[in-house]
Amino acid sequence: MPKKEKKLWGGRFDNNQSPLVEEYTQSVEFDFNFYQEDIQGSIAHAKMLAEIGILTPQELNLLIQGLEKIKAEIETGVFEWKKEFEDVHMNIEKRLIELVGDVGKKLHTGRSRNDQVALDFRLYVAKAVKEWQEYLRELITALVKVASKNKDTLLPGFTHLQPAQPISLAQHLLAYAWMFKRDFERIQDALKRIEVSPLGAAALAGSAYALNPDFVAKEIGFRASFNNSMDAVSDRDFVLESLFIASVIQAHLSRLCEEIILWSNPCFGFVLLPDEFATGSSIMPQKKNPDVAEIMRGKTGRVYGNLVSLLTVIKGLPLTYNRDLQEDKEPFLDTHKTISLSLILMKEMFLKLKFQQQNMLKAIKKGFLNATELADYLVLKGVPFREAHHISGRLVKLAENKNISLEELSLEEMKKECSKIEEDVFEALDYKQAIQKRNIKGGTGPKSVEFQLNLLKEWIKKNGGSV
Amino acid sequence: MPKKEKKLWGGRFDNNQSPLVEEYTQSVEFDFNFYQEDIQGSIAHAKMLAEIGILTPQELNLLIQGLEKIKAEIETGVFEWKKEFEDVHMNIEKRLIELVGDVGKKLHTGRSRNDQVALDFRLYVAKAVKEWQEYLRELITALVKVASKNKDTLLPGFTHLQPAQPISLAQHLLAYAWMFKRDFERIQDALKRIEVSPLGAAALAGSAYALNPDFVAKEIGFRASFNNSMDAVSDRDFVLESLFIASVIQAHLSRLCEEIILWSNPCFGFVLLPDEFATGSSIMPQKKNPDVAEIMRGKTGRVYGNLVSLLTVIKGLPLTYNRDLQEDKEPFLDTHKTISLSLILMKEMFLKLKFQQQNMLKAIKKGFLNATELADYLVLKGVPFREAHHISGRLVKLAENKNISLEELSLEEMKKECSKIEEDVFEALDYKQAIQKRNIKGGTGPKSVEFQLNLLKEWIKKNGGSV
Amino acid sequence: MPKKEKKLWGGRFDNNQSPLVEEYTQSVEFDFNFYQEDIQGSIAHAKMLAEIGILTPQELNLLIQGLEKIKAEIETGVFEWKKEFEDVHMNIEKRLIELVGDVGKKLHTGRSRNDQVALDFRLYVAKAVKEWQEYLRELITALVKVASKNKDTLLPGFTHLQPAQPISLAQHLLAYAWMFKRDFERIQDALKRIEVSPLGAAALAGSAYALNPDFVAKEIGFRASFNNSMDAVSDRDFVLESLFIASVIQAHLSRLCEEIILWSNPCFGFVLLPDEFATGSSIMPQKKNPDVAEIMRGKTGRVYGNLVSLLTVIKGLPLTYNRDLQEDKEPFLDTHKTISLSLILMKEMFLKLKFQQQNMLKAIKKGFLNATELADYLVLKGVPFREAHHISGRLVKLAENKNISLEELSLEEMKKECSKIEEDVFEALDYKQAIQKRNIKGGTGPKSVEFQLNLLKEWIKKNGGSV
Amino acid sequence: MPKKEKKLWGGRFDNNQSPLVEEYTQSVEFDFNFYQEDIQGSIAHAKMLAEIGILTPQELNLLIQGLEKIKAEIETGVFEWKKEFEDVHMNIEKRLIELVGDVGKKLHTGRSRNDQVALDFRLYVAKAVKEWQEYLRELITALVKVASKNKDTLLPGFTHLQPAQPISLAQHLLAYAWMFKRDFERIQDALKRIEVSPLGAAALAGSAYALNPDFVAKEIGFRASFNNSMDAVSDRDFVLESLFIASVIQAHLSRLCEEIILWSNPCFGFVLLPDEFATGSSIMPQKKNPDVAEIMRGKTGRVYGNLVSLLTVIKGLPLTYNRDLQEDKEPFLDTHKTISLSLILMKEMFLKLKFQQQNMLKAIKKGFLNATELADYLVLKGVPFREAHHISGRLVKLAENKNISLEELSLEEMKKECSKIEEDVFEALDYKQAIQKRNIKGGTGPKSVEFQLNLLKEWIKKNGGSV
Repeated sequence: MPKKEKKLWGGRFDNNQSPLVEEYTQSVEFDFNFYQEDIQGSIAHAKMLAEIGILTPQELNLLIQGLEKIKAEIETGVFEWKKEFEDVHMNIEKRLIELVGDVGKKLHTGRSRNDQVALDFRLYVAKAVKEWQEYLRELITALVKVASKNKDTLLPGFTHLQPAQPISLAQHLLAYAWMFKRDFERIQDALKRIEVSPLGAAALAGSAYALNPDFVAKEIGFRASFNNSMDAVSDRDFVLESLFIASVIQAHLSRLCEEIILWSNPCFGFVLLPDEFATGSSIMPQKKNPDVAEIMRGKTGRVYGNLVSLLTVIKGLPLTYNRDLQEDKEPFLDTHKTISLSLILMKEMFLKLKFQQQNMLKAIKKGFLNATELADYLVLKGVPFREAHHISGRLVKLAENKNISLEELSLEEMKKECSKIEEDVFEALDYKQAIQKRNIKGGTGPKSVEFQLNLLKEWIKKNGGSV
Repeated sequence: MPKKEKKLWGGRFDNNQSPLVEEYTQSVEFDFNFYQEDIQGSIAHAKMLAEIGILTPQELNLLIQGLEKIKAEIETGVFEWKKEFEDVHMNIEKRLIELVGDVGKKLHTGRSRNDQVALDFRLYVAKAVKEWQEYLRELITALVKVASKNKDTLLPGFTHLQPAQPISLAQHLLAYAWMFKRDFERIQDALKRIEVSPLGAAALAGSAYALNPDFVAKEIGFRASFNNSMDAVSDRDFVLESLFIASVIQAHLSRLCEEIILWSNPCFGFVLLPDEFATGSSIMPQKKNPDVAEIMRGKTGRVYGNLVSLLTVIKGLPLTYNRDLQEDKEPFLDTHKTISLSLILMKEMFLKLKFQQQNMLKAIKKGFLNATELADYLVLKGVPFREAHHISGRLVKLAENKNISLEELSLEEMKKECSKIEEDVFEALDYKQAIQKRNIKGGTGPKSVEFQLNLLKEWIKKNGGSV
Repeated sequence: MPKKEKKLWGGRFDNNQSPLVEEYTQSVEFDFNFYQEDIQGSIAHAKMLAEIGILTPQELNLLIQGLEKIKAEIETGVFEWKKEFEDVHMNIEKRLIELVGDVGKKLHTGRSRNDQVALDFRLYVAKAVKEWQEYLRELITALVKVASKNKDTLLPGFTHLQPAQPISLAQHLLAYAWMFKRDFERIQDALKRIEVSPLGAAALAGSAYALNPDFVAKEIGFRASFNNSMDAVSDRDFVLESLFIASVIQAHLSRLCEEIILWSNPCFGFVLLPDEFATGSSIMPQKKNPDVAEIMRGKTGRVYGNLVSLLTVIKGLPLTYNRDLQEDKEPFLDTHKTISLSLILMKEMFLKLKFQQQNMLKAIKKGFLNATELADYLVLKGVPFREAHHISGRLVKLAENKNISLEELSLEEMKKECSKIEEDVFEALDYKQAIQKRNIKGGTGPKSVEFQLNLLKEWIKKNGGSV
Repeated sequence: MPKKEKKLWGGRFDNNQSPLVEEYTQSVEFDFNFYQEDIQGSIAHAKMLAEIGILTPQELNLLIQGLEKIKAEIETGVFEWKKEFEDVHMNIEKRLIELVGDVGKKLHTGRSRNDQVALDFRLYVAKAVKEWQEYLRELITALVKVASKNKDTLLPGFTHLQPAQPISLAQHLLAYAWMFKRDFERIQDALKRIEVSPLGAAALAGSAYALNPDFVAKEIGFRASFNNSMDAVSDRDFVLESLFIASVIQAHLSRLCEEIILWSNPCFGFVLLPDEFATGSSIMPQKKNPDVAEIMRGKTGRVYGNLVSLLTVIKGLPLTYNRDLQEDKEPFLDTHKTISLSLILMKEMFLKLKFQQQNMLKAIKKGFLNATELADYLVLKGVPFREAHHISGRLVKLAENKNISLEELSLEEMKKECSKIEEDVFEALDYKQAIQKRNIKGGTGPKSVEFQLNLLKEWIKKNGGSV
């Protein structure tokens, strides 16, 4: 009976590993995700080997055919993944040798698992963050769409969760559009550091073969190849940077989720959730729970945790590759799934929110949201700002005590606090006025909002979307 | 053709959820792990319902039989898990109703998913951390075993990774034994807060049925039931505490891993790794890599990240249950797997390490590890400590310049620095002496080590182990 | 002119450090906080040295007098701290030698900075966490006081921030009391691991002098001394555990803060903030901002960050002392200040909150908070639970469409959905009833609340408080 | 006797705050750091107010003179900071009004503390990260200098901390140069998002005055002003991004520190530390501890913790300003100090390291570092790579058993394993050869290193440095 086959790298070893060790150290359970990138990278490497004469054209063809057959096998579910081959690279290499014979062994020439795994992962991360960009663009598009219809919808703008000034719903939603646009651009910047090919670095010192690293980089559509082989195999900045960008995206989403949760509480009542994005209670029939928004807010923990996880791994690691670095993949895969689903679902949910204008208006009145207007009015009448602020504060207190709104105070009552107040004060106290007056760049006024919408629409089109 | 069946809690809803929402909000992919606890909890709840007269004995029997059948179905792989039923509770309840009819609907009386999920998870966490205790005890046992054989094996004790004083290998290893014992005791303390039953809390206000929460607590072997229903359904301290304890365990393991990695570097050469716990290089045939120790050190990131993840989730959540809390389970499951495998593998690896006494001794000599002895010798001769320290430092410098060890200096050379040095100094400079002298409680002397070993052996026996 | 004096440990060194290095490595800027503990530990050490005959009674007296003089100098602001002496220990030792001469140098016999700093910090942490216990007890007392007056004050209990069932304000507040009690107990457990004396461990191997570690432990009121010298100088678990406990405390506070912030929003209007705990806006005169609650919620970041900070430091550190460990102090000091002020301020703020019963009731009605009662009513009439749940859900929808509350539906309307509904349904729909019915252990019913209050009052008294 | 003066925003409040609240909510203890930015921003705002006719030229002059006088007062230590004025803005405004009278009150026109604090902090952060860029450039310059002298200095390249292949010290050091260059570029990208002016946003809705935000942006040298006022006052991405970049910098430093610590252990002996960057032991005279490198590695915890801190703060915050955001400053200030000192000290320490060539060579021999060369040699002789790898592995084992190095095996011994081995194998086994052969882009060969050095030198010059 044949002994269990030895590991590929097992020449020097007498004993094989225990099954528990296999379980603990294998990565095939998650890195099979990178089969496409592994094959893409191998084909590029093979082409380069042919280019520099290490492979004949026939050998190159054999290898490409073999690799493409394996890809097909994987995609049709025929391929048999084995934990004892540890990772995606070894699984594919083993099968390749089965398929094409000894020439399969030549593929690894000038390459190490250290640079191979780095390349595969870079290819995967680059694709992933570009997907995020698409989802971000689509979410921004949804925000722009809803904002376009709500330039005149008023709601209280909060600071400290206290009603502060009336704003338009459009202005509020566009605040998020600009956040997500920053996230998009952060990815754009990071790609300069992600799309760099480590092939040629071999294990750490650079290959002894006269390989052409830039050929491979070009072949796979990367911007450059590494300038230093030791950096090439031990750098995981590109994963950290992606995990950080994801953390900011999810933080932004968590803020929006918090608002959706608040707004759908009946005390606010600013928004009705679509049935598809809410759930009921097993014990309380009247409930309509914003579960999707809650889970999304909760998943912020997971995305932050994944960032902390890799930061911890990297701390204090000497050069070059250390096996600790295998722990870079699961956090990223988990974050990738979370960010993608979150962005898609937020867009879908968002488009179906039903905003309740009347409830928003009610909240504006409850909050004395024309108090700032009153202060501004006084300043225009020549009262120094700080003093105007105090006068307005005292009038709010008076109205509060009488349980009425500011505009329901009589002119005399107001004059008692400041003789400069006149009949035109009531115009100044009109809520719509407050919005109309703020057409300064960035302001909540309709012209400013229109300006923002145009900038964003242009940007969306420039980045392959339509609005 | 029948419409897709509605959700169990779907009475009020017109539209069903989208598949993506289902994917995003479902938890059955991971909480199927708790099927045993769910059934255990349901049986206890049913018994209590019978005890207070809500179920007849016949109904109780039917329910228990149904639940046990389901357990068998799950364990034989027959049970069909459905994502559209969202979680383990609904999957089991659905099946129960299929099996036993309308009486199955009665099981949920006085219970909510909020308290049910809290109970299941508490049962699971309690079992898990008790497993950790076993693994910790076994690892301590291994350390004790190896230490018992190495009371006279000398190696340099490091501070700042600089050789400081000679110590016995036993002393070094027992330092870890005491760390892991602290971890064990931390779990013991936490169990007081884990093993508290939330059943009876219903959704948040307490059940309107005259349930007996303490009956259930006793039935499942818990210490108590909750004093406050709102706390009962929203408390996740017990998970946080477990994730923290795991973080400390993994931190301790990471320290030991770091040492194993250092010690197996040929410059140190203090230890030979067993083949089963090392791997080779695909490109460098001479390598014997401490992969298991590296991955274990790396997994510290994951365990820390899981703690951060849940801390983030909890921050700022209002009472009581929020769906964010669903994010408590995956971090724990991941940490549970990591801690369990890490502790088991460390024990196995540890027992097979081959310590290289000669290389350890070589390192002691290189490090002038009798310099402190020299200072102590001077103090005994009446030199104030600080002065003794300076004299010893100058003699080290002299020996270093001559490229010899301290004991190879001549008596005259020493006398030049301090006339109180006499012939008996050479006895003081003997490395073994340095160990022998340190029998103070906690010290590296053989008697102190013996004392530690006895304490630990007793403790192991008291806690169900053997040594 | 005299050369700048050398460092105390500088015997072997030719060059002194650069000022920047001094700045970077010194700790006196923060560890002067431990002067009391340092002196307390030194006196205990001196007494022990006298006990075993290394110091004469006269020398002991001299040292104690010197140390107490230094303490007085520090506390009257006369003492001159110098960064070039690096830390609190060296500053005090230097001054001691000035004051008492050569005998001052003897104090360090058998001691190292590694064990000295560990002892000082343990003394400090123990005092700090005991302070937290007092603040926790005081906050619990405040919660109990306010709860005692609000057993019949109704407010909506939320799940998913959706109104779920009516609860009493007392029940809601006591949920927090039980959380903080758990925090108190967690400290109690941790103290077993904090109050362990490392003196005798010397640098790492145990002192060569026949010291009596247990004498010192007893002298300073600690529970034990260490069993292993290497563990003694490198263990920082006690700081981690304290930082974790603080994280849970602050997480609990952040939840309460979130509720206070929500409740003081005018849409809720559940609570009026005391002026002393709110601030205004520099631009909006009507604002009353819950700044204290917001900052407290924000400080959760800081407390979590401090925990992550030390976890990161510990990861992968080989034995024994490494200078990285100096980074344990600032996170703890910062957390100590934060936790102490937060607990005190929460108590003060809490006692001055003015709860607005009418607004709470309004929110109950808005939320159909008797829907569960309706379902329970149906179950009592013999309808299976799941079905009852669906019927109740449909009636909520009907009432919502008619913009009325459930109890305002006519009996006929209800009967259309379920013929078993009768006149007595209106009794069941009464909100007060819902509370009265929940006297199960832990429930929101007044008897259960009374039971909780009694348990807590007893506990407060047992722990040195009064209520 | 006059009552204590009221807060500036205190118009509506009856009671003043308690001193503890003042202590808890004030920020002047740390935000006085921003006095320069506050004054710079105020002058720009004043100029813009004059530009649009709100201030007369005379008023503008008065304000500028007043602000510059305050700056002088602060810088000469005359200015009296008061905690009761809460923050840097109020302290300066109060003093301004004292100095210039009522016109001082006009300065705040159209501005809120929300946008003012955001502006000040952005100015401060922009300056800080540009400083980091300088320190990074200087550190890279130091690495380039030392690398230039060590193109032929060999040391073992490690993977898994096991010796893998010989590399040049230059190649090793340049790996870090490229890391720090990435950090530099990451800052460059972030500045696009930092240098955006929020002035004009007022509290949240945009100012009602016809301000010119772009005028202010240009005046202070920023790239743009915000497009959305709500985003402007609630965005803290720029701090998160800076804290993240700092985390990666510190992670890179921690890796270099780890190596310096390892290399200065006598078992390695690769490097001698300069006295100024090491410290001694209070108890062990022979020690030379790499304290600066250890503390720097330890400070990674602090820098990570600060990032986690702010991520936690941001999670789930609704728009717009919440007082939680005040917690953004201390983490940044702490990180700024840490990163700046770390980068400066690493450069200084690094330039004084004395590399020990002989010890490095010894380590190469111990590690069979020509095993890969042997495998490569076999491939050139036509042996398939995998097979060559196995043969080389078996020969290493043989040499290890005989306790000799590979090149000391006889030709016959080698031929037994593979008949294709011939006399020229000994040339292939020469360590220098291994370096010479790796002139591939990125490789450790001298030509590749030269190429890297030239690229870096050009880059340094382009960025204002000299080398």
